[in-house]
Amino acid sequence: MPDNAQQFASDNYSGICPEAWAAMAEANQGHQRAYGDDEWTARAADHFRRLFETDCEVFFAFNGTAANSLALASLCQSYHSVICSETAHVETDECGAPEFFSNGSKLLLANTDNGKLTPQAIREIALKRQDIHYPKPRVVTLTQATEVGTVYRPEEVRAISQICKELNLNLHMDGARFSNACAFLGCSPAELTWKAGVDVLCFGGTKNGMAVGEAIVFFNKDLAEDFDYRCKQAGQLASKMRYLSAPWVGILQDDAWLKYANHANRCAQLLAELVTDVPGVSLMFPVEANGVFLQLSEPAIAALTARGWRFYTFIGAGGARFMCSWDTDEARVRQLAADIREVMSA
Amino acid sequence: MPDNAQQFASDNYSGICPEAWAAMAEANQGHQRAYGDDEWTARAADHFRRLFETDCEVFFAFNGTAANSLALASLCQSYHSVICSETAHVETDECGAPEFFSNGSKLLLANTDNGKLTPQAIREIALKRQDIHYPKPRVVTLTQATEVGTVYRPEEVRAISQICKELNLNLHMDGARFSNACAFLGCSPAELTWKAGVDVLCFGGTKNGMAVGEAIVFFNKDLAEDFDYRCKQAGQLASKMRYLSAPWVGILQDDAWLKYANHANRCAQLLAELVTDVPGVSLMFPVEANGVFLQLSEPAIAALTARGWRFYTFIGAGGARFMCSWDTDEARVRQLAADIREVMSA
Amino acid sequence: MPDNAQQFASDNYSGICPEAWAAMAEANQGHQRAYGDDEWTARAADHFRRLFETDCEVFFAFNGTAANSLALASLCQSYHSVICSETAHVETDECGAPEFFSNGSKLLLANTDNGKLTPQAIREIALKRQDIHYPKPRVVTLTQATEVGTVYRPEEVRAISQICKELNLNLHMDGARFSNACAFLGCSPAELTWKAGVDVLCFGGTKNGMAVGEAIVFFNKDLAEDFDYRCKQAGQLASKMRYLSAPWVGILQDDAWLKYANHANRCAQLLAELVTDVPGVSLMFPVEANGVFLQLSEPAIAALTARGWRFYTFIGAGGARFMCSWDTDEARVRQLAADIREVMSA
Amino acid sequence: MPDNAQQFASDNYSGICPEAWAAMAEANQGHQRAYGDDEWTARAADHFRRLFETDCEVFFAFNGTAANSLALASLCQSYHSVICSETAHVETDECGAPEFFSNGSKLLLANTDNGKLTPQAIREIALKRQDIHYPKPRVVTLTQATEVGTVYRPEEVRAISQICKELNLNLHMDGARFSNACAFLGCSPAELTWKAGVDVLCFGGTKNGMAVGEAIVFFNKDLAEDFDYRCKQAGQLASKMRYLSAPWVGILQDDAWLKYANHANRCAQLLAELVTDVPGVSLMFPVEANGVFLQLSEPAIAALTARGWRFYTFIGAGGARFMCSWDTDEARVRQLAADIREVMSA
Repeated sequence: MPDNAQQFASDNYSGICPEAWAAMAEANQGHQRAYGDDEWTARAADHFRRLFETDCEVFFAFNGTAANSLALASLCQSYHSVICSETAHVETDECGAPEFFSNGSKLLLANTDNGKLTPQAIREIALKRQDIHYPKPRVVTLTQATEVGTVYRPEEVRAISQICKELNLNLHMDGARFSNACAFLGCSPAELTWKAGVDVLCFGGTKNGMAVGEAIVFFNKDLAEDFDYRCKQAGQLASKMRYLSAPWVGILQDDAWLKYANHANRCAQLLAELVTDVPGVSLMFPVEANGVFLQLSEPAIAALTARGWRFYTFIGAGGARFMCSWDTDEARVRQLAADIREVMSA
Repeated sequence: MPDNAQQFASDNYSGICPEAWAAMAEANQGHQRAYGDDEWTARAADHFRRLFETDCEVFFAFNGTAANSLALASLCQSYHSVICSETAHVETDECGAPEFFSNGSKLLLANTDNGKLTPQAIREIALKRQDIHYPKPRVVTLTQATEVGTVYRPEEVRAISQICKELNLNLHMDGARFSNACAFLGCSPAELTWKAGVDVLCFGGTKNGMAVGEAIVFFNKDLAEDFDYRCKQAGQLASKMRYLSAPWVGILQDDAWLKYANHANRCAQLLAELVTDVPGVSLMFPVEANGVFLQLSEPAIAALTARGWRFYTFIGAGGARFMCSWDTDEARVRQLAADIREVMSA
Repeated sequence: MPDNAQQFASDNYSGICPEAWAAMAEANQGHQRAYGDDEWTARAADHFRRLFETDCEVFFAFNGTAANSLALASLCQSYHSVICSETAHVETDECGAPEFFSNGSKLLLANTDNGKLTPQAIREIALKRQDIHYPKPRVVTLTQATEVGTVYRPEEVRAISQICKELNLNLHMDGARFSNACAFLGCSPAELTWKAGVDVLCFGGTKNGMAVGEAIVFFNKDLAEDFDYRCKQAGQLASKMRYLSAPWVGILQDDAWLKYANHANRCAQLLAELVTDVPGVSLMFPVEANGVFLQLSEPAIAALTARGWRFYTFIGAGGARFMCSWDTDEARVRQLAADIREVMSA
Repeated sequence: MPDNAQQFASDNYSGICPEAWAAMAEANQGHQRAYGDDEWTARAADHFRRLFETDCEVFFAFNGTAANSLALASLCQSYHSVICSETAHVETDECGAPEFFSNGSKLLLANTDNGKLTPQAIREIALKRQDIHYPKPRVVTLTQATEVGTVYRPEEVRAISQICKELNLNLHMDGARFSNACAFLGCSPAELTWKAGVDVLCFGGTKNGMAVGEAIVFFNKDLAEDFDYRCKQAGQLASKMRYLSAPWVGILQDDAWLKYANHANRCAQLLAELVTDVPGVSLMFPVEANGVFLQLSEPAIAALTARGWRFYTFIGAGGARFMCSWDTDEARVRQLAADIREVMSA
């Protein structure tokens, strides 16, 4: 089972979903104006404005690292700092991209509760140093859903945005799995973002069925000033932009984004349910989005790997992350669960 | 003729060629390892090594701005400078990207001969300032084919690389239209690059039938040290890399890259031939690659625009650039030529 | 005449003036709070506010390169551009510092009239490119007095600031020799700066009798937000700040700054007057501040050098720059003039 | 006791020592070539080469923040990381300067033993992440003496440099109080640096009796390539360099640097001895250099402050840092000790 066994390693191991592919195929007709002056890009931006029920500014970047870094750089200067979770992707997996794009902004790591920042943790970090010998806090970034598969409730986001306002901090949301968060909560994208005080959202497409491409959505339009220049200078303006924007039209127009996020979340729930009674297995975090973090035994992990399953184990001894995707096969979920049961009882 | 009339505005107004599309479709099967650890990326890199007949290091970036800037940044430090043509894309159309990625390297503009740098011009610029109050020259960048449609011969590249060695300068080639240069000269990619002393080439795919994606090819492998980290930090590492690499397999495996470059060049030649005898029309530069630069009258330009033709006029009063592409329709070339003849005799 | 012969090479070949020295000596008593929280720094800032007749924000940096670069970086982002004279020090003699501190802002070079920018030249440059493929103009920087010894009149600065307002550009003044400009015009520092629309001034101390240290004066206080952090991060916050600020108290409190600038200007005038009738000698630029630019013959230049005189010849064949300073000896001016007369008639 | 009471707040609250002052006065004669081409700068560099018994490359910067940041930037690229102590000045008190100068290099914080890095801690941090999604470790920086007043022994430095060689890491030493370390150990500067494998040292002058100025000493000369350009671009090249270099001649030529470091260390020892038997007082760290870190009661701290004493309390509840300097008055040390005894028994 060479290929399918990789299904739980990462949601970016999956391919392009039919709706995104069809839109690309449709866009691949004749000549189109370059650099975003095409029809597809205008349509995609309109879809975002409809989805978020507000006149937001929308930009497209090639990947999440760039989207997050450009957004953060637009929210602070090099001598400012960004408060994030100690497990935030911007801290742990972007190779210093936020520091690079901002020319030096420091990330300040806050403790979290199930991967989620709290107003209290933000306040402590923000007020810890207030002298010019240390970068001045200027931004808070949340990951929604978090890197450990949990989801901020609208009221949690609101509480954070209130502390941000109080402390003069901008609020950014890394939404690499924003779709999964919306699907889990069943609430509208607007409720989870600008209505809760988010200034800028990076909305991930790659992990939900696109080839490349993230959308940067500014609800606070003042902060978007000259952001098009920023993207261009940083190598994030596609000449044939239609191939970045058309897939968005594809997954937004009939809500495929939500359908697939629901599917991935359901697969994660299923996996959790199927192993929850296995002796020795425990959930490391509540299963809310599309990831399942299991505490297993080390021999069990080795045995699963020997059976060909691929998954990440960066969470510490005995921890295993299983990610579900838009195209995860439920039969494979059941097979994985059966294998977990077997190896744990071996 | 809304759509087709745009055919001569830019070669990045064109879409994805069949070979690239087919490879993407084939790659879009099941799950694949992310971040370049997939089979397609390995295959694409091998195709480049075969094509260039040498064990080069190959990286993929999303677009030419990033590819050029990352390559230049790897060849110099912030206090160094880059010698380029005054018409070089890195100077005129990348919004300060080279300065951004390198954290401040200055571009030094040299006069050119039909858009081409000469050893003499490079020497003059390089030796003009040799004090610490001015950035130290460290790199020369050539555009092949040039922004005005001309092509460096292998011996011209060699002469430049010799002056580079003499002056301790690295040699970079911006090959956004490298395919067109190879097609025009009928010589091998190796002859035009490492055999002529080029250290790093940015090989353009976008303008020759791909959706996104340029390859950065290091012939001087020492200069490639940790370049993978550089790409990652700068937001140029695709998670689903197969969609960047598979199209390269598609256009390299059966030489579609060359077939299409030949086609685009031929269309340009055809256009030039068809209007060469029109009174008042003159060629601004020799037609070698896929661009035709015509000196027209200003009323003629207005008349062509009124007929729906799209083309660029940034070259000065009366100058018009017509670009041909991998999918340019010869019938449209003839119609454009006929229209030029008409409006010039009006 | 080893030492004195250097008197005309540069005004930063001169030492510390008595008033600055005395203030440093006085400041060198016991312990003082560090990083600018000392009495001398407060006094120096107050002197600036009195001198400029307004409640400006004042910061101190170690040298002019840093002062200019930090000021410019606070006025634009990396994807913006700075319009300057083609002879501006920021362009020709700061080794890419503006590009480095701003993380990539491009300098756009305008033609000048006797070294001075004009509203027309600024407008042309600013409007030349208005697309995202080229850095967006955001700042104009003037050098007062200019690098060729000329001085902007208040009405010239006003005309420039009007075009800046019209085009949404900030206005910076590099005042490395601002003292000499004030001395020449006999007008108040306020008239030459904020009353004429200047947003930020870098006021040079080094060339007018200090060891190190330039003041950055924000008349537009909004632009000064968090500028103290910027200075700190960029390595421009002195721990023992009193040694940077006390000399300012020394030269500002009894107007030594003006006395010395007047002296230097007078010496330049004297030199010009003494050689104006020498056959073959001509002034390259009007002598307004403390520099004299003479067109000599190349043999004459060689002969002067052979006699031990030191001066710069970067202005082109036969051009020679003679700078006067706060401590230039009039007898040496006369001797230099006599030598010029001799070598030109040889 | 307004002024003297500040004597223990920071060693940079102190002034210029007589030897440095005298050298500045002597240097303040007539004109001198600018930008380091003067005699004083050559003499100062020679003194360093004599002191370190090797042909090192020497550069001068205005302050420690810049010296450290420039040195680190020369040892790594933006996508590399720097391993440092969690209490390192570069991390806690330079406002993100290392990240700014290097355009994004990340600091990786290691646990320490009495403020000192250990080979084991370095190895763990260096090997923790070895994938391109996290900055690649490339440099280790030590602070000698440490921020908590302890001193690395030569064999400790050697052990660290061995692990550096093994892991391909460069070794930098932040020597803001290098003098105090040498004085404590009684060993030669060479033994503590290049003989123990240090690549680059930033040798602090400010805290040991100078107005401004740190020396950057490259023992590994390959790493110094074009470092003069780096300094210039970053605003760290003084035009009147003699005022930065002459004080070094002053304190190096007759070993005033060592005399003063010994004095400051002795004062710290004295303070520690005088309070060591006070009930409730304990030393937080061994007293080796010129700082004393005492655990006091919070009321005692308040009482000392009320009596006018100034000192830092950033070390946590009840912690107090008392710094001695080149000019600390022993009578004041005794008075402080007596006051500590009194307030602790109140």
